[in-house]
Amino acid sequence: EGRGSDSGARTVIQQCSHAKVKIKPALDGTDAQWAEVGDFGLVVYVCFFHGATEDVTHDMANKLMTTRLFRKNAGHSVSLLDLPGSILFVPQDSLLGKTAPNRRMQYIGGCELWWGAQLFSNLVSVCRELMSGSAKCTSAGVKVEHGLYGQKQEISLTSVEPLTVLLEF
Amino acid sequence: EGRGSDSGARTVIQQCSHAKVKIKPALDGTDAQWAEVGDFGLVVYVCFFHGATEDVTHDMANKLMTTRLFRKNAGHSVSLLDLPGSILFVPQDSLLGKTAPNRRMQYIGGCELWWGAQLFSNLVSVCRELMSGSAKCTSAGVKVEHGLYGQKQEISLTSVEPLTVLLEF
Repeated sequence: EGRGSDSGARTVIQQCSHAKVKIKPALDGTDAQWAEVGDFGLVVYVCFFHGATEDVTHDMANKLMTTRLFRKNAGHSVSLLDLPGSILFVPQDSLLGKTAPNRRMQYIGGCELWWGAQLFSNLVSVCRELMSGSAKCTSAGVKVEHGLYGQKQEISLTSVEPLTVLLEF
Repeated sequence: EGRGSDSGARTVIQQCSHAKVKIKPALDGTDAQWAEVGDFGLVVYVCFFHGATEDVTHDMANKLMTTRLFRKNAGHSVSLLDLPGSILFVPQDSLLGKTAPNRRMQYIGGCELWWGAQLFSNLVSVCRELMSGSAKCTSAGVKVEHGLYGQKQEISLTSVEPLTVLLEF
């Protein structure tokens, strides 16, 4: 839908009060494991298009961490690094989807699975570097969490002030 | 981001196991009221662009109800009317957002508040008509629910099989 020819990735970003993704199911009496973020967190659903490069992940990390996405008080907006807040990345290849004839959806144009996994892991690393370079972030204990690439994972999200943004890179 | 010049609306669609939006806060001992949907529901975040017409809401309703968004068994995909499932519309003007210089977000290009409210209400009505015209839907008791236009509302969503799709109209 209107994707520019130079796009490498699509993200849908949601502000949350709490969100978690199941990264390991409950097994034989052990509890399930979740990746989770709390108040003033961002959940970022991500897909990569065919042709995406590592440069894209740097651009994404920089924009996601420094763009003033949050509105704190009237008129005053701040970034994740300013807040500071935590971020949860969720791989979501369905974001590739387009409507096709015959009431179908087409999920084409994504990058190869192995390369998407590499880009996803790169994105997480760059964000962690940016956070660890901020004294404010390290003293506040905010973090970069993530789901598992290439898997469907149970998710749960609550948000007192829902805010959904679409960003393409 | 790459919106075609003829777009009237943007939606982000999420499959859920359960989702709810607060439509009335708790007051003096009364419980809060929620609009909610259960298993195999769709949550649809909506914004309307400047110039959107009522035609757009008809197109949206038709596509949202009849496009095979859900994957049921391996390879077999079905629409909301086929399932049948319920749908929860959540107004979300932040979907207009674009990145601007200076790490800011710009939220421009939306339609007037009164007209957006009218289009939103129209969208809900057309979907309800489509549902009431389906014997499968009426006997299954599925429904069209919605949040309040022009207000921030607490939201909560869980999904065992997360699926996020972007559709523009």
